[in-house]
Amino acid sequence: METTVEKATGLLEEASALVNERLESLLPDPDEAPTRLHKAIRHSVFAGGKRFRPALMIAVGRAFGTERDRLLSTAAAIEMVHAYSLIHDDLPAMDDDSLRRGKPTCHVEFGEATAILAGDLLQTLAFRAIADDDSLSPEVRVRLVSELAGAAGSPSGMVAGQQLDLDAEGAPETISEEELERIHLCKTGAMIRVSAICGAIIAEAGEEELETVAEFASHLGLIFQITDDLLDVTETTETLGKTAGKDAEAQKATYPSVFGVHEARNMAMGHYWRANEALGRLSVPTSDLQELVEFIMMRDK
Amino acid sequence: METTVEKATGLLEEASALVNERLESLLPDPDEAPTRLHKAIRHSVFAGGKRFRPALMIAVGRAFGTERDRLLSTAAAIEMVHAYSLIHDDLPAMDDDSLRRGKPTCHVEFGEATAILAGDLLQTLAFRAIADDDSLSPEVRVRLVSELAGAAGSPSGMVAGQQLDLDAEGAPETISEEELERIHLCKTGAMIRVSAICGAIIAEAGEEELETVAEFASHLGLIFQITDDLLDVTETTETLGKTAGKDAEAQKATYPSVFGVHEARNMAMGHYWRANEALGRLSVPTSDLQELVEFIMMRDK
Repeated sequence: METTVEKATGLLEEASALVNERLESLLPDPDEAPTRLHKAIRHSVFAGGKRFRPALMIAVGRAFGTERDRLLSTAAAIEMVHAYSLIHDDLPAMDDDSLRRGKPTCHVEFGEATAILAGDLLQTLAFRAIADDDSLSPEVRVRLVSELAGAAGSPSGMVAGQQLDLDAEGAPETISEEELERIHLCKTGAMIRVSAICGAIIAEAGEEELETVAEFASHLGLIFQITDDLLDVTETTETLGKTAGKDAEAQKATYPSVFGVHEARNMAMGHYWRANEALGRLSVPTSDLQELVEFIMMRDK
Repeated sequence: METTVEKATGLLEEASALVNERLESLLPDPDEAPTRLHKAIRHSVFAGGKRFRPALMIAVGRAFGTERDRLLSTAAAIEMVHAYSLIHDDLPAMDDDSLRRGKPTCHVEFGEATAILAGDLLQTLAFRAIADDDSLSPEVRVRLVSELAGAAGSPSGMVAGQQLDLDAEGAPETISEEELERIHLCKTGAMIRVSAICGAIIAEAGEEELETVAEFASHLGLIFQITDDLLDVTETTETLGKTAGKDAEAQKATYPSVFGVHEARNMAMGHYWRANEALGRLSVPTSDLQELVEFIMMRDK
């Protein structure tokens, strides 16, 4: 019998293949000028990420019974926004990281100026991919653009979270659980939450189901962030494919730095129960979603 | 009698007041967290630009008979994309400029990390402003998002132009007129062109009129770029409110550096005639548009 991890790995691999194919057709031709820019975005987009956000989006959309094909351009758009944020996050003025998924980061490979432009372009292409997706009604596309922009922006999205994280740097001991949760609900949580929401919007789920999906995904996002923080403490650079121990070095406010490893694990467990409780309230089959939750709880990279 | 410059100045001032009011309501509250980020975007957005793109968009929309109010969120969005590009363009890894419109640039005032995030956020907010504009049909909004993303992106938009410009840096003597035109049609031309196009889309102009508007605006964009290049050579930092002589220092490929001042002026004149010729083919009143063209031809900053 397949284990939960094997099943989740299957879901991620399937989503990965589908979304990579769609990304391939949506990104500009690497041989067309400006080639340096187009090669830079592909370097980062096809660096071998888990495609967790697209997998989550596809799992939600399919749970609510929509066709897979209608989900893929938005899934690709979400992955483009994620990739843009990683490129800019790795810049010398931000986290100054030279390694990502075991490869040189975009600015190391293509120079800082091109890396800034590559991030900018990926964000642009993400919104264009949704606007141009004629398998969806204009009403749905407009709502997806709005939701994605809210999740990527401020005051409650990814960029807000990055700024709050910068503001908190250097003084992790002074932060409360509420403040840390706010940072992470924004920084990684909002994009995970919107992935689930976009799947439900495309599937035309009712507003009440949408709320429950959002609640589920908020807890999943926090599990994702807490386990990410724990891995930075407990794993090696080799296992992670990115520089380990960076958070402590930068005096970042993380769950283990603020609460210790043991308490951070307890918090992840709390969100695990609440994510599953929310899933239990949905009227649709949720086994794929449960497997993704298990996978994130148990991941080692 | 009012001179052409006075009339154009009136149009720009009117557009400026309208779009500033809309921007004020669309940008996040500067007192809401993360305040540093929200203050940084306002620092750059309200730094006193001419608001040429919004003025052009409003003039086109009104020429085709649409209500002014339906134009303002998209005009604000275009200005947000323009402001994001200036913030990122001024970064140390790009043009490394410390002065813009007579004020310290965003990274000088708020630090590089916040400036990167501020540019990122402005792009996000631009697409959100259009998606959320319920004075427009979802069909129109989706088309505006797509057009704006095309103009801001690559291979034929602003970011493509910036990369081509970077690629050409250091060897202005080896570039042809065609290559220089390609750079500038992308770098500044695409956003000027899309400003005009968005005005016509919102006014529901026919496809043939739209083509003519696009042709007009392409020439206007080239006039804008050539006169901008000339001002960098002929004016002082004080007059411009930004560092003069930067292009020559960076060995940028500009019209005067490649063709000399005299020939660059001739080229601007050629585009001036062709812009007016395109206007002559429109079936709607174009006096405001003619005044904007005159203004750009004769500007001294």
